[in-house]
Amino acid sequence: MITAKGYAAQSANQELSPWNFERRDVGPHDVQIDVLFCGVCHSDIAQINNEWFPGIFPMVPGHEIVGRVVKVGDHVKGFKVGDLAGVGTLANSCRHCAPCNDGEEVYCENGVIPTYNGLDKYLDNQPTYGGYSNTMVSDERFTVHIPENLDLPAVAPLLCAGITTYSPLKHWKVGKGHKLAVLGLGGLGHMAVKFGVALGAEVTILSSSPKKEADAKKLGAHHFVVTSDTEEIEKVKNSFDFILDTVSAQHDFDFYGSLLRLNGVHIVVGIPPQGLEIKQVFGLQLGRRSIVGSASGGLKETQEMLDFCAVHNIVSDIEIIDIKDIKTAFERMEKGDVKYRFVIDVASIQ
Amino acid sequence: MITAKGYAAQSANQELSPWNFERRDVGPHDVQIDVLFCGVCHSDIAQINNEWFPGIFPMVPGHEIVGRVVKVGDHVKGFKVGDLAGVGTLANSCRHCAPCNDGEEVYCENGVIPTYNGLDKYLDNQPTYGGYSNTMVSDERFTVHIPENLDLPAVAPLLCAGITTYSPLKHWKVGKGHKLAVLGLGGLGHMAVKFGVALGAEVTILSSSPKKEADAKKLGAHHFVVTSDTEEIEKVKNSFDFILDTVSAQHDFDFYGSLLRLNGVHIVVGIPPQGLEIKQVFGLQLGRRSIVGSASGGLKETQEMLDFCAVHNIVSDIEIIDIKDIKTAFERMEKGDVKYRFVIDVASIQ
Repeated sequence: MITAKGYAAQSANQELSPWNFERRDVGPHDVQIDVLFCGVCHSDIAQINNEWFPGIFPMVPGHEIVGRVVKVGDHVKGFKVGDLAGVGTLANSCRHCAPCNDGEEVYCENGVIPTYNGLDKYLDNQPTYGGYSNTMVSDERFTVHIPENLDLPAVAPLLCAGITTYSPLKHWKVGKGHKLAVLGLGGLGHMAVKFGVALGAEVTILSSSPKKEADAKKLGAHHFVVTSDTEEIEKVKNSFDFILDTVSAQHDFDFYGSLLRLNGVHIVVGIPPQGLEIKQVFGLQLGRRSIVGSASGGLKETQEMLDFCAVHNIVSDIEIIDIKDIKTAFERMEKGDVKYRFVIDVASIQ
Repeated sequence: MITAKGYAAQSANQELSPWNFERRDVGPHDVQIDVLFCGVCHSDIAQINNEWFPGIFPMVPGHEIVGRVVKVGDHVKGFKVGDLAGVGTLANSCRHCAPCNDGEEVYCENGVIPTYNGLDKYLDNQPTYGGYSNTMVSDERFTVHIPENLDLPAVAPLLCAGITTYSPLKHWKVGKGHKLAVLGLGGLGHMAVKFGVALGAEVTILSSSPKKEADAKKLGAHHFVVTSDTEEIEKVKNSFDFILDTVSAQHDFDFYGSLLRLNGVHIVVGIPPQGLEIKQVFGLQLGRRSIVGSASGGLKETQEMLDFCAVHNIVSDIEIIDIKDIKTAFERMEKGDVKYRFVIDVASIQ
């Protein structure tokens, strides 16, 4: 076994504190990664607090992981010692169902194993521990190559916030000639803007806060609409081909749906805890509109996204923090006070 | 003006009673139709009772209309006296927006005018009156040809129940290799089964009532699953490519969503008055599922549907009634006691 140093919540709702734990030895298909940076995702807070389902504790969060390969198993083909490598939200899957065969492991029919807060049923039910730790062991199938030309800490959030927004944009073929509205300007939303622009769409940020306009434009958005401005809202009714909705608070799906044109698609990647409601089914029907969900993305698409980022020079906007500041970071995230992702400098985990 | 005899609700929630009213004279692009049969749609009851929005009274319901052309305007090109003709849910639209130009008038960006319970803003705000009447005047653009080889009264419901189910099946390209579940075995549902089978899909009827199994098979469904049978439901989890949902009562969208496979589409053509709710957004996301709405269909597609029916010998299963029995028919419909559509023999309107 490999001894790892990390930060863990010992039980639900607990603050993170240093914790030494063991990872499996490097198997024939595994790579071991010295973790350099790990992004801080809203879902880390949600899972520590059991907001979605009872968690597995001690919990070492983190699924936006980048680092350098320090060891490879005998049968590893795609990585060598010294390579940059990344791990996202997935640790394992069945590997033989149709989605797995298509490289869409996130939709594994037999159940995907998350990078942390999971028990790997395909591997003796070992608990999985995330990237708030100095070292990872990852099957090479669930490991991606990180382009050398990008700013490494700013790449980390691509592994969740990036792929979660890139994947639906690609799946629904968003691009030139499309009007895309991005709802929620946080970790996911700011990536959605960058990808939407790079894919050629005309991007509008919908925001409740007029203060965000300057930032929106800085990110490359073509338009900015304050949702409480009834005059401006009237102008964008029935206008968007797509809404990419990253909001996890409750919000009014009838209202946003009314901004979609005929055949418009409302893509939901946020996770409103009480779910979503359409009060006027007519609204869906008279615009032949769709409400769709999308999870993060498979390994093939995650690699494609990273390669796309390398070409288009896309990374996340980040604030680098020490692990000792994680509590403050969580508090600031709860208030939406981060532009747009905290990334832990894992050297601070000692 | 043309004097018409019909049955009308004089105000909301009132029983229908005989009413003489006037229709416009036959204009250069109009046809006048001797109405022979008119289907009785659930929406007739809903609109008489102001369930959707305040209605326009007196209201002559009926938008599943078939009859024979008795007069044509000077510029009418597609119809001649003696032709069979049909009118569905649409009386008019702006005729110049993108959907209108594509023959999808039902999605007119400037507002479609319904066959009854509307004021035609494109025509001096004239009120529109439906097919519970002996004669119709209809613009030829909003009139379809009825195939001569089909049983005429059984064609009437195709003009709403038919096109409302045919249109989404075509739009989402349902066909060979697809598993289609039909939810709700009424006027719309029984048409969905017939179309699904004719298009080559493997069709399952989902029903709360085991009693409907024999009928389901008679309609051509390949499978029948009682939704309370947990063992059978377990077998169809994650299995359907499409659910065509014709239910207008409240129902559990999370439950039905769980029966969809990856990328599955839940097509909502029923109109649950309180709307719809997804409690577990994860369910949508982890299956990349869609919930979509669809209205009836444009004129081009309605004609295509009728031609498809002529080739595949598809009509509605009906019970023919006299207009004097309309009250009983409404009562029986409210209890789901009709196989599967009442059709008024309009000769009984004197």
